[in-house]
Amino acid sequence: MAIIVQKYGGTSVADTERIKAVAKRVIETRNGGHDVVVVLSAMAGETDKLIQLAHQVAKKPDPREQDVLLATGEQVTISLFSIAVKDMGHEAQSLLGHQARIYTDRSYGRARISEIRTEPIWHNLYKGCIPVIAGFQGLDERGNITTLGRGGSDTTAVAVAAALGADVCEIYTDVAGVYTTDPSMYHKARKLQRISYDEMLEMASMGAKVLHIRSVEFAKKYNVPVHVRSSFVDEPGTLVVKEEKSMEEVMVSGVAYSKSDARITLAGLPDVPGVAARIFTEVAKEGIVVDMIIQGSSGDTDLANLSFTVPRPDCQAAIQILERMKAEWKDLEITSDENIAKISIIGVGMRHHAGVASLMFQTLANENINIHMISTSEIKISCVIDDRQTAKAVQVLHEAFELEKPLHHEIPE
Amino acid sequence: MAIIVQKYGGTSVADTERIKAVAKRVIETRNGGHDVVVVLSAMAGETDKLIQLAHQVAKKPDPREQDVLLATGEQVTISLFSIAVKDMGHEAQSLLGHQARIYTDRSYGRARISEIRTEPIWHNLYKGCIPVIAGFQGLDERGNITTLGRGGSDTTAVAVAAALGADVCEIYTDVAGVYTTDPSMYHKARKLQRISYDEMLEMASMGAKVLHIRSVEFAKKYNVPVHVRSSFVDEPGTLVVKEEKSMEEVMVSGVAYSKSDARITLAGLPDVPGVAARIFTEVAKEGIVVDMIIQGSSGDTDLANLSFTVPRPDCQAAIQILERMKAEWKDLEITSDENIAKISIIGVGMRHHAGVASLMFQTLANENINIHMISTSEIKISCVIDDRQTAKAVQVLHEAFELEKPLHHEIPE
Repeated sequence: MAIIVQKYGGTSVADTERIKAVAKRVIETRNGGHDVVVVLSAMAGETDKLIQLAHQVAKKPDPREQDVLLATGEQVTISLFSIAVKDMGHEAQSLLGHQARIYTDRSYGRARISEIRTEPIWHNLYKGCIPVIAGFQGLDERGNITTLGRGGSDTTAVAVAAALGADVCEIYTDVAGVYTTDPSMYHKARKLQRISYDEMLEMASMGAKVLHIRSVEFAKKYNVPVHVRSSFVDEPGTLVVKEEKSMEEVMVSGVAYSKSDARITLAGLPDVPGVAARIFTEVAKEGIVVDMIIQGSSGDTDLANLSFTVPRPDCQAAIQILERMKAEWKDLEITSDENIAKISIIGVGMRHHAGVASLMFQTLANENINIHMISTSEIKISCVIDDRQTAKAVQVLHEAFELEKPLHHEIPE
Repeated sequence: MAIIVQKYGGTSVADTERIKAVAKRVIETRNGGHDVVVVLSAMAGETDKLIQLAHQVAKKPDPREQDVLLATGEQVTISLFSIAVKDMGHEAQSLLGHQARIYTDRSYGRARISEIRTEPIWHNLYKGCIPVIAGFQGLDERGNITTLGRGGSDTTAVAVAAALGADVCEIYTDVAGVYTTDPSMYHKARKLQRISYDEMLEMASMGAKVLHIRSVEFAKKYNVPVHVRSSFVDEPGTLVVKEEKSMEEVMVSGVAYSKSDARITLAGLPDVPGVAARIFTEVAKEGIVVDMIIQGSSGDTDLANLSFTVPRPDCQAAIQILERMKAEWKDLEITSDENIAKISIIGVGMRHHAGVASLMFQTLANENINIHMISTSEIKISCVIDDRQTAKAVQVLHEAFELEKPLHHEIPE
């Protein structure tokens, strides 16, 4: 008998019919002899609707009160779900963030879980009652309601699984698992049976939207096996686990892409120490997160060039900050490009295989895809290219690294 | 400087524009030098929508979970309202039932307030912050969410006012106050400046929907002055207060009516002791509340007749219970009439004026309005008449008791 935490996302509880279907699924797991703890998101679209309401009342809604508002979304689904389970003759009890004692810091809208006092969850399991926990929400030490930010229900589920020492945390979503690349971008994308936490982290931060990045960090930290699967079909998905020897046999596990960044290029900067520090300090002050950075000499000995990427919605704000610096640096020229994409190949095997980078660059070059920027980590290589070439790049990289082929260690389904 | 509790009903917070208007009104009261505590209902229609959702999931939704669901309605309005107040430059803090520490018993769906631990409210007032309390909800001693039933936000407001020793509890609604009768039924209905708790209780139980009956009981018990007024206009409404000498000068304060009952008549009952007790015990077992009862002899010495009224939705269930008794009482005949109305005149002055009842009966007789049943209390006389004659009865009684004339002690507006 295992303890299984099951988290169902917004599309899985989108209406009362879906909620009843999910209730049946949970009861089946229970009838299979397992203890189940359920974590739910709000109905799909509900959180956005509530944010809209808040913005009808104020341009900048108070963060504490906005969290009180947003927390209602999950409150609706956990109560409806518990009603459904009880109507089917099983015991269930909804637990709000404060009832499940999910303590967080006070950062409204992006709170971090500090502690889960698991007594109410254990007490329900002891009684043979399915605990149904509101995802995305917690309380601070003063009893204020907090929310964890986008995708926070994944984090709730993994944190609950970690706190209980659960055997697995199943994340039910509207896709069948983690793919070698976005199936809507390339039809030969293949579902992975297993992926390591680190690869999943790189995938998530590179734009694969299957799992929220913080939940993966949590899973890695507490070594919680995460099973990403679909609530619409009854087949295994992808297991996100600790790195295994067999995973290193393949060079690359997946191709990810993101179109959410913009590139800013500064020319005519004085080529003296401290310039980059000045620039990024000013940008950081406004809360703008810089991702890739390339600094180069312009040929002119006194002047330097600098390119970096920022989230697309922050691009104009960043440019405004930089414009102010023209007073000081007279030769400064600012250009920006919002039509870029970041394409990445990811794989723990990269560490032990030479030539991965050169194969990537050569493959893109063969298709006349120009690389504007490059950044690498131990298990990832990212290139900035033109937006319009994204689909082609995904396809040729997927082919070049033979991602459509099942792996040696994978069991055929 | 007074402490004022202001409660706004569903129509007063029906959308974000109305919420902003109410926020302005609260700030004006505060700028007038008063401390304000706000209690809010859910947006008009929201609670019904949530009940519908629950019934899509189960025919008989679990009461605990339904309360968790329903509590979201007020959570939405208090957070939006607090966002609005803060956006207007004032301090506000939303308090859910558990945060405002409104303790109740465990009767889900119709919980009764047992205690309010007022520290969080006082702390906010001390900080110069407007406490914005969710109406209709509380928590039991185990931390479960409870709701108070229909109109429960009125009760929350009066209970909070009582707990704080507030100077007045203002109930904002979509009507301008308490009227001598329903203005939609008779155009000469006049707004009362003052009314006693007992009169208001009779009005409420007789079908006047301005205030929830439990809130009036609470106000009477703790002597909280209640000011019923409109949030759509800026003029005084009706003050519900302890009985005053001047109130006894008038015989009748108002005419109320209700079309929510049905009459059941039993003929051929054995005329022996214990029959009525048997009948009403069986009916009560099913939770059906009986209102008026008339027992009479049928002329036939061995048999008796019995008439009583029940809420219209319970009529068929009551008849089913009675049908079973035919096995025992062979002569039993059951008839029912759902097309009845109850019309009542109410006034504390009745106690000191003779001839009120005879004037009522004569007035109805003059219009050929047949009286089926009569019941009286110290300050009320009710008659059951045919449904279709309701409007006429209201009109002629209003005229007969001269309710359109302002009272001596009333200050002209």
